[in-house]
Amino acid sequence: MSFLDEALALQPQPDGSFSGRTHPQWANMVGPFGGITAAQALQAVRLHPQVLGEPLSITVNFCAAMAEGGFSAVARPLRTNRSTQHWFVELQQGGQTVTSATAVTAIRRHGWSVDEWQRPEVPPPDAVPVFEPPPGAVAWLDRYEMRPVHGGLPDSLGREHGDSRTTMWVRPREAQPLHAPALAALADTFYPRAWRRSGRFAPAGTVSMTVYFHAGAERLAHSVWLLAEATGQAFRDGFFDQRAALWNEAGELVVTTHQVVYFKP
Amino acid sequence: MSFLDEALALQPQPDGSFSGRTHPQWANMVGPFGGITAAQALQAVRLHPQVLGEPLSITVNFCAAMAEGGFSAVARPLRTNRSTQHWFVELQQGGQTVTSATAVTAIRRHGWSVDEWQRPEVPPPDAVPVFEPPPGAVAWLDRYEMRPVHGGLPDSLGREHGDSRTTMWVRPREAQPLHAPALAALADTFYPRAWRRSGRFAPAGTVSMTVYFHAGAERLAHSVWLLAEATGQAFRDGFFDQRAALWNEAGELVVTTHQVVYFKP
Repeated sequence: MSFLDEALALQPQPDGSFSGRTHPQWANMVGPFGGITAAQALQAVRLHPQVLGEPLSITVNFCAAMAEGGFSAVARPLRTNRSTQHWFVELQQGGQTVTSATAVTAIRRHGWSVDEWQRPEVPPPDAVPVFEPPPGAVAWLDRYEMRPVHGGLPDSLGREHGDSRTTMWVRPREAQPLHAPALAALADTFYPRAWRRSGRFAPAGTVSMTVYFHAGAERLAHSVWLLAEATGQAFRDGFFDQRAALWNEAGELVVTTHQVVYFKP
Repeated sequence: MSFLDEALALQPQPDGSFSGRTHPQWANMVGPFGGITAAQALQAVRLHPQVLGEPLSITVNFCAAMAEGGFSAVARPLRTNRSTQHWFVELQQGGQTVTSATAVTAIRRHGWSVDEWQRPEVPPPDAVPVFEPPPGAVAWLDRYEMRPVHGGLPDSLGREHGDSRTTMWVRPREAQPLHAPALAALADTFYPRAWRRSGRFAPAGTVSMTVYFHAGAERLAHSVWLLAEATGQAFRDGFFDQRAALWNEAGELVVTTHQVVYFKP
């Protein structure tokens, strides 16, 4: 079992909910890495006995920092159609909601397909130096190997950058299938865009993240590396947003994702 | 009262929910225009006695076509923090969920701000011809004046386009304040990107839409026209996604928005 598998091992309870635990290998500065929380919320849908099809989208709202320890995951199908199903998920601690999510699962039918957001031309992963997290960095950074092609963590602070774009190769350090929860976590691996754009480190935390899945399991079976790119769109009065994409090794766009982030002004 | 005001006039009920009605002036092909449904879901939050601050984000999931007539809107604060508040909203008909939403409201603190997604250079609205909906078009199209600078409704079908981008000036036909529900509706005014990219009209319907609000009321007080731009990102096996933005007349980015859309393959 990888650390991801361990974090996703939710236990079904007699009342239909699941019990889960935070995982020390996925710890962030305060509470767990948001990506693993998103993955756990989606896992509660995937494990639900009534689930229809594969994940198409999820929006995860980080209501409060999750405390170390156990949580309860409640997934509720709100509406089941012929080929789509709508979900509401809450992760709770002490009876209080710490994370909420809505998700859509769908049965895909093969048909006309084209990527409009094309994978940028970049050197292969082997030609790009690995990002080494500084000593004492948060635990979850060790779960991924990141090779930034452009826009790595800024080393010269105090200077605004003209853009906030980061392009990087990324892969889980432990080999694992790139199922939807793994992709949801990968969608959150970028450092805060405001750090680059503003040239200063300041507390930042994702408020809400949406992930669209453009690929079923079969397009991901043979991919190890993903190319990941993120850009801020608006930085305004203590919040900013980011759009990002993940492409597989074949160059197919497999995830698009957006988030709005709190940033200490 | 404008038609928007009429659609947003939700009536508080003794159990804390609101009752609303679909509005014939906002009708789409099947059920109401998704933008007005998003606006109504957000309005249930704005009218709630416990609301804190202004809308920061909303994700609206279109679970089923809304039938003409009444609906019940239930908004529930899931978590209230010092400066952010998390909401879950359901619109129901006959006890069944037809629309679900999560929203975040927040108290904004003025601080460092910059737009990374810059408004494209385009001619002023007066210099761009008005789009005239064809006779018998859906009612909601008459609620907006649209002046497409690029990527209007394709008149030559059967031919794929190299991109799916639309750039247009848009304003409500009835003068009204551009509050958050008005912007949520405006965020959904683009025709389906797949029509342009694939060169064929086929049934399409938004499954889930997210709107990030980058401006409080004061940045919108003096704006009539908005510049709106939308681009598809991935078209894959019966679904596609779209990213879009709205800028005010001063050139400030006031909304970024994304949606994933069903498209008959």
